[in-house]
Amino acid sequence: MTDIVFSERGDKDTVETGDLLMPKYDADGLIVAVVTDHVSGEVLMVGYMNAEALRRTIETGEAWYWSRSRKGFWKKGETSGQVQTVHEILTDCDQDALVLKVSVAGNGATCHVGYRSCFFRKVTSPASGTARLERVEAERVYDPNEVYGKH
Amino acid sequence: MTDIVFSERGDKDTVETGDLLMPKYDADGLIVAVVTDHVSGEVLMVGYMNAEALRRTIETGEAWYWSRSRKGFWKKGETSGQVQTVHEILTDCDQDALVLKVSVAGNGATCHVGYRSCFFRKVTSPASGTARLERVEAERVYDPNEVYGKH
Repeated sequence: MTDIVFSERGDKDTVETGDLLMPKYDADGLIVAVVTDHVSGEVLMVGYMNAEALRRTIETGEAWYWSRSRKGFWKKGETSGQVQTVHEILTDCDQDALVLKVSVAGNGATCHVGYRSCFFRKVTSPASGTARLERVEAERVYDPNEVYGKH
Repeated sequence: MTDIVFSERGDKDTVETGDLLMPKYDADGLIVAVVTDHVSGEVLMVGYMNAEALRRTIETGEAWYWSRSRKGFWKKGETSGQVQTVHEILTDCDQDALVLKVSVAGNGATCHVGYRSCFFRKVTSPASGTARLERVEAERVYDPNEVYGKH
């Protein structure tokens, strides 16, 4: 546990325009964090934090998340080296979402599939019928099969 | 209902690297949507969509959400005029998050508090103690009290 304290939720005005961080967690105690590249602004990934992950992130300056699938703390980059140094954390009007502006260490990729951003596909827009995806990032930064073996 | 069809979830490889849109909804049937400015890349807001809101967004090219507080469909800008024209929709590796690249009509603000972005405050970083917020957007686009009266 760290020493950083978040304030209890206040009234609407205090939450929306005040100067105290009063995070609103969902039923699972999590808040969504949108991670962007500090320089380009590109959205790299979306993660989730509980209060302690947010405290660790603020205290250490490196991004910690709560893994919903593994149900445990997850320091991004601990195995991959893709550690996120956090330059700025923003919150929105109702304080139920965060934006983290980061720079990525290691090979510079964020996605475990090998791309710079997890958002490497766009929806193509048919008038009707099956919605399809198309890659917007042409090249992967690395091939995870070569680095980690088939998974 | 529209005619656009989303595919059933497939195996890990199909979801993560395939070319079919297979959205993963949470327990409430929602998927998170990160909304960015089409030109600057700035994160403007975070919203939630159910399958039908996503279909309407793809079909009409304007952003529809599901309001968790009002439990109903919400076409952004219907009352404020801050309609979002959607230029691109991205999805991430596990297809449980979306990025919408939009341009904003009306007065160009997205936040109901009057700012261009809902993320108009940053967390200041104490070593310990109470986490505080500081405005990063100096000027509001408009004063909602003047437009809509006190609320």
